[in-house]
Amino acid sequence: MDFTSDNAYGVAPQILAALSEVSAGTSPAYGDDEVTARLQAQFSELFERDVAMFLVGTGTAANSLALASLSPPYGVIFCHEHAHIHVDECAAPEFFTHGAKLLPLKGANGKLTPKILDEALFGYGRPGPHQPQPAAVSISQLSEAGTAYTVEEVGALSELAKARGLGLHMDGARFANAVASLKCAPADVTWRAGVDVLCFGATKNGAMAAEAVIFFDPDRAGDFLFRQKRAGQVFSKNRFIAAQMEAYLQDDLWLTLASQANAYTAQVAEIIETSRIGTLAYPVNGNQVFVYLAPDKISALHGAGAKFHPWPVPLKDGKQLCRFVTSYATDPTGIDEFAKVIADLT
Amino acid sequence: MDFTSDNAYGVAPQILAALSEVSAGTSPAYGDDEVTARLQAQFSELFERDVAMFLVGTGTAANSLALASLSPPYGVIFCHEHAHIHVDECAAPEFFTHGAKLLPLKGANGKLTPKILDEALFGYGRPGPHQPQPAAVSISQLSEAGTAYTVEEVGALSELAKARGLGLHMDGARFANAVASLKCAPADVTWRAGVDVLCFGATKNGAMAAEAVIFFDPDRAGDFLFRQKRAGQVFSKNRFIAAQMEAYLQDDLWLTLASQANAYTAQVAEIIETSRIGTLAYPVNGNQVFVYLAPDKISALHGAGAKFHPWPVPLKDGKQLCRFVTSYATDPTGIDEFAKVIADLT
Amino acid sequence: MDFTSDNAYGVAPQILAALSEVSAGTSPAYGDDEVTARLQAQFSELFERDVAMFLVGTGTAANSLALASLSPPYGVIFCHEHAHIHVDECAAPEFFTHGAKLLPLKGANGKLTPKILDEALFGYGRPGPHQPQPAAVSISQLSEAGTAYTVEEVGALSELAKARGLGLHMDGARFANAVASLKCAPADVTWRAGVDVLCFGATKNGAMAAEAVIFFDPDRAGDFLFRQKRAGQVFSKNRFIAAQMEAYLQDDLWLTLASQANAYTAQVAEIIETSRIGTLAYPVNGNQVFVYLAPDKISALHGAGAKFHPWPVPLKDGKQLCRFVTSYATDPTGIDEFAKVIADLT
Amino acid sequence: MDFTSDNAYGVAPQILAALSEVSAGTSPAYGDDEVTARLQAQFSELFERDVAMFLVGTGTAANSLALASLSPPYGVIFCHEHAHIHVDECAAPEFFTHGAKLLPLKGANGKLTPKILDEALFGYGRPGPHQPQPAAVSISQLSEAGTAYTVEEVGALSELAKARGLGLHMDGARFANAVASLKCAPADVTWRAGVDVLCFGATKNGAMAAEAVIFFDPDRAGDFLFRQKRAGQVFSKNRFIAAQMEAYLQDDLWLTLASQANAYTAQVAEIIETSRIGTLAYPVNGNQVFVYLAPDKISALHGAGAKFHPWPVPLKDGKQLCRFVTSYATDPTGIDEFAKVIADLT
Repeated sequence: MDFTSDNAYGVAPQILAALSEVSAGTSPAYGDDEVTARLQAQFSELFERDVAMFLVGTGTAANSLALASLSPPYGVIFCHEHAHIHVDECAAPEFFTHGAKLLPLKGANGKLTPKILDEALFGYGRPGPHQPQPAAVSISQLSEAGTAYTVEEVGALSELAKARGLGLHMDGARFANAVASLKCAPADVTWRAGVDVLCFGATKNGAMAAEAVIFFDPDRAGDFLFRQKRAGQVFSKNRFIAAQMEAYLQDDLWLTLASQANAYTAQVAEIIETSRIGTLAYPVNGNQVFVYLAPDKISALHGAGAKFHPWPVPLKDGKQLCRFVTSYATDPTGIDEFAKVIADLT
Repeated sequence: MDFTSDNAYGVAPQILAALSEVSAGTSPAYGDDEVTARLQAQFSELFERDVAMFLVGTGTAANSLALASLSPPYGVIFCHEHAHIHVDECAAPEFFTHGAKLLPLKGANGKLTPKILDEALFGYGRPGPHQPQPAAVSISQLSEAGTAYTVEEVGALSELAKARGLGLHMDGARFANAVASLKCAPADVTWRAGVDVLCFGATKNGAMAAEAVIFFDPDRAGDFLFRQKRAGQVFSKNRFIAAQMEAYLQDDLWLTLASQANAYTAQVAEIIETSRIGTLAYPVNGNQVFVYLAPDKISALHGAGAKFHPWPVPLKDGKQLCRFVTSYATDPTGIDEFAKVIADLT
Repeated sequence: MDFTSDNAYGVAPQILAALSEVSAGTSPAYGDDEVTARLQAQFSELFERDVAMFLVGTGTAANSLALASLSPPYGVIFCHEHAHIHVDECAAPEFFTHGAKLLPLKGANGKLTPKILDEALFGYGRPGPHQPQPAAVSISQLSEAGTAYTVEEVGALSELAKARGLGLHMDGARFANAVASLKCAPADVTWRAGVDVLCFGATKNGAMAAEAVIFFDPDRAGDFLFRQKRAGQVFSKNRFIAAQMEAYLQDDLWLTLASQANAYTAQVAEIIETSRIGTLAYPVNGNQVFVYLAPDKISALHGAGAKFHPWPVPLKDGKQLCRFVTSYATDPTGIDEFAKVIADLT
Repeated sequence: MDFTSDNAYGVAPQILAALSEVSAGTSPAYGDDEVTARLQAQFSELFERDVAMFLVGTGTAANSLALASLSPPYGVIFCHEHAHIHVDECAAPEFFTHGAKLLPLKGANGKLTPKILDEALFGYGRPGPHQPQPAAVSISQLSEAGTAYTVEEVGALSELAKARGLGLHMDGARFANAVASLKCAPADVTWRAGVDVLCFGATKNGAMAAEAVIFFDPDRAGDFLFRQKRAGQVFSKNRFIAAQMEAYLQDDLWLTLASQANAYTAQVAEIIETSRIGTLAYPVNGNQVFVYLAPDKISALHGAGAKFHPWPVPLKDGKQLCRFVTSYATDPTGIDEFAKVIADLT
């Protein structure tokens, strides 16, 4: 009954196997190897256009480097107030951008809308050098509320962003879960909908440590490689990152794993909903479900061995927001057990 | 006959196996796992004192974060003019320190001496805020010339550094090779000789991507963890980095691998020296040998399939400096073949 | 009828005279002169304790350097959403702090309260390095709404800030106007109420370019001088900045000028209020009055030659927020003329 | 007998008068005033082409902002080892550039040559993101040795810099002294000789605090204004900086003052040379003379009341390098007195 995080799980067997396979012999370092070259082509095929791809070790590095390519040091990056880049990365985007300002915005279900962005942009554009300069919008797919932006929602945000000269960044730490849920082409919910740069995460969904930054217009990558290097994010044995990602994409493993994780969360959500032990806080579009639970129910569940995180927000009507996450590797017997525990409590 | 780099090789089987072992089940993320806890104790035992250990993904990140803990943004870091931190990390130390100044110094055999440091410090200490402030000395063990600082040499540098209030950083990307060569206790050539922070590298010597930053006085680590996080260097599935390092330390694997690599280089060096095809540039203390070769000899060797890098320095007496590196995983038949190729040429 | 800004005016005659006086002869550069030494003592007397004082050229530099002494690069600085440091300094605080996060908070009348701050702090303090770390609170005295924090209000905020380990910064670009309005001792509304560092502005109130950063605990200044120097804010002919400030403090000139400016604004506010041409948005405590005006009234006033700035916020009930500012040097006949123009319009 | 620094003197009467003149009435803030507009035109006339001009308060800010426009954060800036930007600005260029590397080079008479630069560039240009990237050359006019680069010398350096894709920055803290000495058109020794950006200093030569950054290709200025603002270097009452500079340029006051300062230094140099009390270290082209003096002579001169700075370099043949500086405002009777003191000593 471990629903704490998808980060708590190990590495998919196919990916572990790939590591062993590429270990033999010698190979050029720092990304000049064959695996990396193959992966570059694979990503271009996946996204149905030539893309520029860079591999880094963590989602924080991916997001921060991507944002640094979209914003000058005096830029403003608009994001949801609960965005991972704003609340959970220890000001890494500010570090990598040399001081850009993340402007946190409120939005239902963890998502921004054109209306929210438009209001936030009010007042910008005065003459003179006094105001920080609007530079980019960042959205998370899945959002931090576990919801997915639809293709249309991304497109509408992008339209406004483009009209105002802003770049559009997508934090795709759980991009696989979103695509598995939306059942759309990866291209449709990214560049065709106006996304400029995507952080394509694999770590939470079965890789060891592998994140790809994808520029849909390769020219837009600019001096990314130099910034990546001086951030200590160019790996000497890069083929081991590339091999993880290659296995992850192979035969749509990424979608298979994400679909499994999503299915488990759907089960957890249904158990909770039908039991009425708590109220779902947001629509469930991926591998996370947020639930308002009374403190005594939380204690009882924890006492029964269910692991999940109360969320660091104030109580609402006496209930605490809690997060349950599943992975492709979640033990299904744990879900059955969870159902029984809840049945006993309600 | 691949002598290009120790980065060109794969991962030691013991380390690959360790990755599979820790993959099962769930485990707290971001370093709160058992493997990381065990490793912390292991490092304290190895160095015969309680140390503070942080795991990062690349040597560049390790060095830069370590230096940022020793130098304010307006500090001066004294290093050899060929130091990796100065010439090969795309100004990463300047990024992580927020602008400290690396002052490159000339020194024989890739090493600094107290005399060199003392001369470099001349003139510092004037009143007022005008001068950048001397903050740290950085040495590489092995040096970029493939030489090892002896325990006494480190101690002498440290004595001067301490007297001037400077921290002492050791870039140990090839620390294993140095210790295997010096046959000293790791503690003797580090904290007992005055080193404040060591970047203990494993990647070049059989790991996939694993570097440890070791503070011998844990208090000195200060806010390292926050700086590590905002640099995107705290790995969510940290146990996979820790597992690499644990296997690397287990039964002195690190020294076994390094000794093997050193032995191969000793063979290469002897082949070159006895053949008189070129002149060794520096003493050989580890797994690198630098040789002055005539351009036609370089062409002939390359033509015969030997892989190695000419070094980006001007010709000296018509000869080009070249570097040969071996790994524990170097194919010994390649060395035999190299001997034959050279025999044919001389 | 120029009510655009106190920055639009020149320099008080006493301050101009002081510049001529200190120009003769030679004097040590960079703040080692007699005028600076005298000024240091003068500030300690004014604030009834030994303070550490640093002179810089602009308010933006003063605020940003002060905040950099209170916050690490991964710190969070809580401020009002309309704070000058957040909206009008082109991300300078982020530059000087190397990436700290300014967290904008809503608050009535341009002011923060303990309740607002307490809510903003909710959720901080989780273990691990993931969250940016709360570091400081910044308030403006006068606020950007032209209101003054009372001694009690500052004290209450400070109490909470101290309890949470946060430093307290006061942006005193219009500190003179606030003190003239509050009629309190400068010490009472600063360090006795818990302020750690004050940016004591003179430029808007009759100086040419002179701002003092005052640390009430000199130890807290830390390495300020080095950071000031590397920001290009240590002036070689520092005595000319010091002389401005000395003349500004002499015989309470600063309060005399500010009281005059405040009195003019009180007249402007009364003209507006009694005419009912618009509604005052906030209490008037200094030399600024904010008024909601119908667009046609704005046009009429502008057409009649009155100069003032509509504020970059959305209309409220069809009215536009507008700002009127006076200086000690405001032409009183302009105020009379303004009264007549308004009388004609209402 | 004060030969310590040109910074020790006050402000030229014409410049003081200009401050009073512009103080009356109101004027738009932050550089939107008439004086600034006039000055912009004046500089374009002086340099015989349309230039982009920015006014800042210190030479350190001018240099650092200028360099930040020429170099990315991972750039290399080549400069003389004694360059003010390298040794006397507390790592300000590193701060403003976000971590570019200043590479100090040795060169006779305080000057760089194409040969020196060419050698320093050796080895750069390797593929991959590992090396910091050569970005700019910075020269000082006058150099820190008091020498002037001739038009031809600047042109030769520029030719190499351009061929390698490097920008050329001129630190003109004593540009007036150089031009007065070279007797060339300002355009000839700057943009016609290939300089991209000039820091045109006035403070050392009679202004209070006024430095202009001049881009000869206005497009090259890029986002300078935003970077200037966020560095706290856009002055609200900008007309007072502009007025200083306007008076400084009026009727070639800048050259008149510099010629006077140079003439005084020529007298000092001749006194020293003919007396044989010491040896001139470098050619004398401006208002500084460097002299090797025996320690007992230094003591005797200091004892007799002559003020000058021993230079922070090691003794050479038992002699200490010392610097003597004059200003247009140097008291000529002090020079006479100095002559007598020396005559008594030799």
